[in-house]
Amino acid sequence: MFSDDLRSVDGLVAAQRSGSRRALARIITHIENGSAFAQPLIVALYPDSGRGHIIGVTGAPGTGKSTLVNAMALAYRQRGFMVGIVAVDPTSPFSGGALLGDRVRMRDLAGDPGIFIRSMATRGSLGGLAQATADAVLVLDAAGFDRILIETVGVGQSEVEIASTAHTTVVVEAPGLGDEVQAIKAGILEIADVFAVNKADREGADRSVTALRMMLSLGVPDKHQVMHHGRMLPITLPPHDPDPSAWMPPIHKTVATQNQGVVELVDAVESHRLYLEQSGTRQVRDRLRAATELRMILRDVLLHRVLDHTPTAALDALVTAVANRQLDPYSAVRQLLGAV
Amino acid sequence: MFSDDLRSVDGLVAAQRSGSRRALARIITHIENGSAFAQPLIVALYPDSGRGHIIGVTGAPGTGKSTLVNAMALAYRQRGFMVGIVAVDPTSPFSGGALLGDRVRMRDLAGDPGIFIRSMATRGSLGGLAQATADAVLVLDAAGFDRILIETVGVGQSEVEIASTAHTTVVVEAPGLGDEVQAIKAGILEIADVFAVNKADREGADRSVTALRMMLSLGVPDKHQVMHHGRMLPITLPPHDPDPSAWMPPIHKTVATQNQGVVELVDAVESHRLYLEQSGTRQVRDRLRAATELRMILRDVLLHRVLDHTPTAALDALVTAVANRQLDPYSAVRQLLGAV
Repeated sequence: MFSDDLRSVDGLVAAQRSGSRRALARIITHIENGSAFAQPLIVALYPDSGRGHIIGVTGAPGTGKSTLVNAMALAYRQRGFMVGIVAVDPTSPFSGGALLGDRVRMRDLAGDPGIFIRSMATRGSLGGLAQATADAVLVLDAAGFDRILIETVGVGQSEVEIASTAHTTVVVEAPGLGDEVQAIKAGILEIADVFAVNKADREGADRSVTALRMMLSLGVPDKHQVMHHGRMLPITLPPHDPDPSAWMPPIHKTVATQNQGVVELVDAVESHRLYLEQSGTRQVRDRLRAATELRMILRDVLLHRVLDHTPTAALDALVTAVANRQLDPYSAVRQLLGAV
Repeated sequence: MFSDDLRSVDGLVAAQRSGSRRALARIITHIENGSAFAQPLIVALYPDSGRGHIIGVTGAPGTGKSTLVNAMALAYRQRGFMVGIVAVDPTSPFSGGALLGDRVRMRDLAGDPGIFIRSMATRGSLGGLAQATADAVLVLDAAGFDRILIETVGVGQSEVEIASTAHTTVVVEAPGLGDEVQAIKAGILEIADVFAVNKADREGADRSVTALRMMLSLGVPDKHQVMHHGRMLPITLPPHDPDPSAWMPPIHKTVATQNQGVVELVDAVESHRLYLEQSGTRQVRDRLRAATELRMILRDVLLHRVLDHTPTAALDALVTAVANRQLDPYSAVRQLLGAV
């Protein structure tokens, strides 16, 4: 048996296509590090992608998301699906990452070739975590994973953005968290396609469910407009965008540590997947996903083009002038672009 | 008395310079909304700025940050300083914001012209919350506020970035939070100039202090390198960047609700301010702040330039091709830029 060539883009792509897990891990590392291979790898693998269903799982700290994602992955494995998990570590720019507990997961999931788990952290990429996560999901999709779970802490603009670009977004709640956590939760309700009230064996679980029901009875926001607004490229959404109230986000009680309610939660995600396909909404989400990706790449390419043509000395001089208040930053940017 | 003209950039600037709080509030609204006035306002006010000391206060949900910021603001008022507070609402892209409780604050602080409080949310600005927050802080600085407190939830890449660009960063902890919250806290320790262990009347406060001391005894990270790395423009830091271990972050126990330990915490922030000035480190931070701001503006200006020259139909066609996997997003960006 020949050993794989994992030192070239072509070699990595060929090895991934033949099912090599080592190649897959290497490819994602290239993406995470923003190496010179990252972009050619995405270009090469892009045509293979587009079949997987991407599931964002998000919620405030303390809701037990990681355990729930773990349990969902096992439930999907029992249905014979290949499952990828990308855990987005928001604290990574400083700590170097891996806080979302994939070591704990390994105990249950290790040794199963139908599952692939990765914590994402950014290491010096100007593009940042959102771009790296989108590309890692794409690579898993191209590698034939049927369901890809993206886990994010549901606090912070970019983390919510990452979750909201999934096909199906599961928002995880839990009873009995503090006031500040409750307030944070309020901000992510609008992006939910499915709710999980986890830790449902705790006091207050029914109150949480009732509160969500009441909120939903006030009207379901148009998630596509929310996603489209402002943060996206000014694209046209398909003209026959279906009524957003056609899908009413279901609410499921779960106890992830006891594996309770997880099958029903996974059923709800699958119902949403069918709804997306049958209503044509999946196309809308794919367009929004593509627009988000284009915007992120465009921003980075443009920034690098300018920086590649700007001597450090010129940049230093401008930064000094701005720091000393001799020049405002908008005029500094105009000067910088005038010189390019 | 003539009424102020608040409908023009010149009128707003003149009114702010004469101390109008209404003008100040309007200016920040322009910034938040990304209106056509935002940029000319910043350009006009920039020379007035640069005197205020900017204090980032960040910590995980449930640490009691808002109450502590409130108490710090009151302590600064008692010293005769003018105090601005900018509370960054991370959930705002979806909910529309104002969750960090400025209504609660108003009870204690309302009616005092020496204080100005604002919650920041983004409404459709492509630049996003970090840019809007930096500009709002700049406006308060230009308006003569001596101390400007930026409050962020210390979770999420952009939120940590916002806090870390302050002159002094206070990281707030509290005993007895859950495991996931503990893990999140770990990621923000590296950016601390001063620690507050809030809710110190709870069990476990001394253990929290001991844990922080042990961590610090392992070595203080070079915050400037952390801030500089990757996310910044490739600028040169001043050659005589002082030894990062010259400032050992102090740890203060506080009970913000009882106003305990707050005077000592504010003293520690002021000591850090003096240290920054005497060691020349303030210049380093001002350069990093300027570089961050330049990068954010540059990225936006470039993106808008391209979008202004791209017909929506062309963009739609590219997004469709990417969504249908006929074209990878990197090639799509190349086509887009080739057409501009």
